[in-house]
Amino acid sequence: MSPTTSTVPAQLMDGTALARRVGEETAARAAELTRRTGAAPCLATVLVGEDPASVTYVRMKRNRCAKAGIVSRHVALPAATTTEELVATLGALSEDPTVHGILLQHPVGEHIDERAAFEAIAPHKDVDGVTLSSFAAMSFGRPGFVSCTPGGIMRLLDAYDVDLAGKRAVVVGRSAILGKPVGMLLLARDATVTYCHSRTADLSAHLREADVVVAAVGRPELIRGEDIKPGAVVIDAGYNPGNVGDVDFDGALSRARLITPVPGGVGPMTIAVLLEQTVAAAERQLEARAAR
Amino acid sequence: MSPTTSTVPAQLMDGTALARRVGEETAARAAELTRRTGAAPCLATVLVGEDPASVTYVRMKRNRCAKAGIVSRHVALPAATTTEELVATLGALSEDPTVHGILLQHPVGEHIDERAAFEAIAPHKDVDGVTLSSFAAMSFGRPGFVSCTPGGIMRLLDAYDVDLAGKRAVVVGRSAILGKPVGMLLLARDATVTYCHSRTADLSAHLREADVVVAAVGRPELIRGEDIKPGAVVIDAGYNPGNVGDVDFDGALSRARLITPVPGGVGPMTIAVLLEQTVAAAERQLEARAAR
Repeated sequence: MSPTTSTVPAQLMDGTALARRVGEETAARAAELTRRTGAAPCLATVLVGEDPASVTYVRMKRNRCAKAGIVSRHVALPAATTTEELVATLGALSEDPTVHGILLQHPVGEHIDERAAFEAIAPHKDVDGVTLSSFAAMSFGRPGFVSCTPGGIMRLLDAYDVDLAGKRAVVVGRSAILGKPVGMLLLARDATVTYCHSRTADLSAHLREADVVVAAVGRPELIRGEDIKPGAVVIDAGYNPGNVGDVDFDGALSRARLITPVPGGVGPMTIAVLLEQTVAAAERQLEARAAR
Repeated sequence: MSPTTSTVPAQLMDGTALARRVGEETAARAAELTRRTGAAPCLATVLVGEDPASVTYVRMKRNRCAKAGIVSRHVALPAATTTEELVATLGALSEDPTVHGILLQHPVGEHIDERAAFEAIAPHKDVDGVTLSSFAAMSFGRPGFVSCTPGGIMRLLDAYDVDLAGKRAVVVGRSAILGKPVGMLLLARDATVTYCHSRTADLSAHLREADVVVAAVGRPELIRGEDIKPGAVVIDAGYNPGNVGDVDFDGALSRARLITPVPGGVGPMTIAVLLEQTVAAAERQLEARAAR
């Protein structure tokens, strides 16, 4: 295999622009729903502790809600919150008819059983797609909410007309809310999907054959440009300190056909999908209520 | 890559012998539970229609139950059963305290929503591991029942001390009860997992790199012996008319290090896991009741 370098640099996959378009549609749907039912869609955001990055993420999400006509209700819990307390809070929000979607900001701290917390979110309010139920629904093509980052990645691939059927997709990372579900979504679209991870023996060999690479590990520039197959599509879902992704962007740029920048690629799409799913959840809940 | 042929034929992975050992342990647990609680473990088997292969499978499972000291209660439904009727039957069995495990024999007929039927099985009685909940639990390493064939495959790999960490595993097939879950179980054991399927562009290329092959498609001898990497471990979960698996057995025998025969490999392990999980379900339900 000779290290061919394309003469044309990759086209950037503009997540900011796509997220804006999706956001406009979401805002229109939210306005229409509010007009029709008298109630605005409402997202509850739950944050445990005061991790600065998490505080920023939640604030960004709430700002974007406000712009889209979605009410957000913030629940700030102390860092010392127990699993039982967090489960009780999420259970109460799941029961609250004025809340349509629930976001538990990840991570929640080492002493909390995060899975138990996620499972306390009612599936019909799981607009962040973090429950076991949502994962299984994604895996089997059943109705349900997708995990937001995987959902955003699929939207980006579709917006750039990436053909997935029969193509080799390599997912680097196997987390519950990113690697595993995005692999299942790619498989549902008939890609041949390989899950690579920290124990993979020869990551480069897998990458060199990949038509689509999804980097989802959170290790700065783990993926070297020289390992990208010429003409590949590169999705960088990593976001590391210093605005660095999981892919050596400069190195990959000359080889890939399409690539997401960091920031401005996957990140904005994650929030766009969260908001879109919040409105979808509100539509179902408010309309079901109106029908009664 | 030169087509090296090993001079020593592969060792057979004897599913019949391993299933016998697992079955003896299960029978001992069933006897102990019956002695302690006065109630024998009970598996409900549900069959829709009279497909000859399905009739045979259910009979085999019930015979094996009887030998292990598990009571089986058979529910035979006419081929014309509707989804609603089947869901109601499975719901009633899920509520029935004298039933500890439920097996719905697959397939159920084109006119029935099989997923809706599976989901009517309570997760704590899902000893065949077919619900979305069981799949998600398998995928995330949470407590729950495994799908029986994937579970049996993992037991075989362990019995023959197959090291999976960092190894390339290729799963051919992506069904809900076999391909998808076995891939997730292999991933949980740190294999680098590739899902291949009918749309995969170059199956041979994937197979030639695979340290472990799991064939799970139900297409006779789809996998050619010459595509097996010398020294690979070959698990053939296919079972086609005429006792033919998904792998060209004779061709693979001279290249693989370990291979499952068909029949006598994966098949017996599927039933062994079903029975073992039925007893585990009964233990939990009867002991929870005794504790009250």
